[in-house]
Amino acid sequence: MGVRQDPVGELVRGFRSGDVLALARAISSVEDDRESASAILRALYPQTGRAHIVGITGPPGAGKSTLCDQLIGHWRKEGLRVAVLAIDPSSPFSGGAILGDRIRMMDRSTDEGVYIRSMATRGWTGGLARAAADAADLLDAFGFDVVLIETIGVGQDEVEVARVAPVTVLVLTPGAGDDIQAIKAGILEIADIYVVNKAEGPDADRVVRNLMGLFSLVDEPARPVVRTVAIRGEGIAELAVAVEERRKAIEGDEAFAAWRRSKVERRLQLLLRDRLQRELEALPGGMAPYVEKVLRGEMDPHAAAEALWAERLG
Amino acid sequence: MGVRQDPVGELVRGFRSGDVLALARAISSVEDDRESASAILRALYPQTGRAHIVGITGPPGAGKSTLCDQLIGHWRKEGLRVAVLAIDPSSPFSGGAILGDRIRMMDRSTDEGVYIRSMATRGWTGGLARAAADAADLLDAFGFDVVLIETIGVGQDEVEVARVAPVTVLVLTPGAGDDIQAIKAGILEIADIYVVNKAEGPDADRVVRNLMGLFSLVDEPARPVVRTVAIRGEGIAELAVAVEERRKAIEGDEAFAAWRRSKVERRLQLLLRDRLQRELEALPGGMAPYVEKVLRGEMDPHAAAEALWAERLG
Repeated sequence: MGVRQDPVGELVRGFRSGDVLALARAISSVEDDRESASAILRALYPQTGRAHIVGITGPPGAGKSTLCDQLIGHWRKEGLRVAVLAIDPSSPFSGGAILGDRIRMMDRSTDEGVYIRSMATRGWTGGLARAAADAADLLDAFGFDVVLIETIGVGQDEVEVARVAPVTVLVLTPGAGDDIQAIKAGILEIADIYVVNKAEGPDADRVVRNLMGLFSLVDEPARPVVRTVAIRGEGIAELAVAVEERRKAIEGDEAFAAWRRSKVERRLQLLLRDRLQRELEALPGGMAPYVEKVLRGEMDPHAAAEALWAERLG
Repeated sequence: MGVRQDPVGELVRGFRSGDVLALARAISSVEDDRESASAILRALYPQTGRAHIVGITGPPGAGKSTLCDQLIGHWRKEGLRVAVLAIDPSSPFSGGAILGDRIRMMDRSTDEGVYIRSMATRGWTGGLARAAADAADLLDAFGFDVVLIETIGVGQDEVEVARVAPVTVLVLTPGAGDDIQAIKAGILEIADIYVVNKAEGPDADRVVRNLMGLFSLVDEPARPVVRTVAIRGEGIAELAVAVEERRKAIEGDEAFAAWRRSKVERRLQLLLRDRLQRELEALPGGMAPYVEKVLRGEMDPHAAAEALWAERLG
């Protein structure tokens, strides 16, 4: 018998031996939604389940990067290894990677206990959340103690990522109308822990009151609200405690059973959607023949979708 | 033979006779993604294709509602009938419908040539864009000359709606960093026409320059940038002209063939995704048995997704 090529097996072996290049390649494969990604993740899944995976989101300007940097410093002092996934809505205009670069500039890149990786949006909405969850599993399997998934903004991508992250921290600031924006985006009720950053002034009290008022309004148990002044390191230890307590609660507590189920359900939905997309791309000519029929007025969009479904999946 | 019940046929007949209640019911059926929606849309599709369907988006506070109100006034003076679909990211906290209510307050509701309808986000991301495109088709078939699809914010939902709307207007204001936000969300390159509203001051020049700079940077033909002061009605006629010219260009021009294809392709993708969701919900117990297996550690998420796919769709 000849030598069989097994790039997935090779990558997994490199990964298990602690090769950072193998980690980077594995993340690229989930980012690009390659066929190999699923095999890699399944091979490494038994090694997952140890890391704290924490989503951090909030509007631009809320001080998320500074907050993340302070959290990293806090956890490093405790001897924990920290990975950061910086999620950027990519765009032909911006070229993405704004956030990751900003974190890198904060001089953590020389610390071997810290790993920073940017991921950009591509493809379907939700594809990013699927990729982020997969990449977090990889970082978990690689041995990081904490994985921070940082997103910019409070848009739908952020909601999607928050819906798969085990614990999500929403960072707001007083005065900027951040709370209203977060309400509109629907991210407010998805977050597990609220941070009011830049909380020096009296406006912070108003934001905290508003949050508490909202919880009582919808008859939900109040979730932790932590005040921080990230730039001065204030409130960071309290935030780390809140994250740890939340994690313990959701892992064991029966009250969180439905919550745990919804996270897994969401993740399966995203995986199935990506699978659907691959099936459509595998059609001869992709979706193009039906797109043309709709453009020529020979078919309405609903009939075309139905025909596509029947052809590939019926 | 007995009398056969045919609720879809009855609704379609009511719709064709100009019954506004039938229109409202048809929109509710697409909003809820009911089975009947597809049948209704297919029956009415031959009546579509006449209306200008225009998406209007931009960050909160950019003055979209005022701008829409001015545009409605402009078109009403020309004798056109105008429908507005106000898309709200709904939330248990906000209860949705913020925007639609605001438009209603502007006293167009007594004008029979104006129809206003709010639609709320539910289900998957992208489900809203699918529903908005379907509802716009219904309003088109009902005989409205212009259908405005208004969205709040510059998040992913807005990008999704913009990707299916034939023409999208992005409303920015000087000074608020709106352009940067729009770049990050990826909506900037999806818009067809740019409005710099509240354009009284010199800051407006900077925003216009930035937009032009971006177009040249990515080597794309410059798209129209219209300055408005919506509150005083300035620039509204120019915007209406830009919308009309853009519409003529994309309908006939060979240069827009790829663009037209991408809009239809996107719409089919969204329809197929909703179909996938319905298939999963039709499984005995839905996705729950596999969710439980993942929670108990008997299966990894990728294996569970694969098994679900095979069971229902393989």
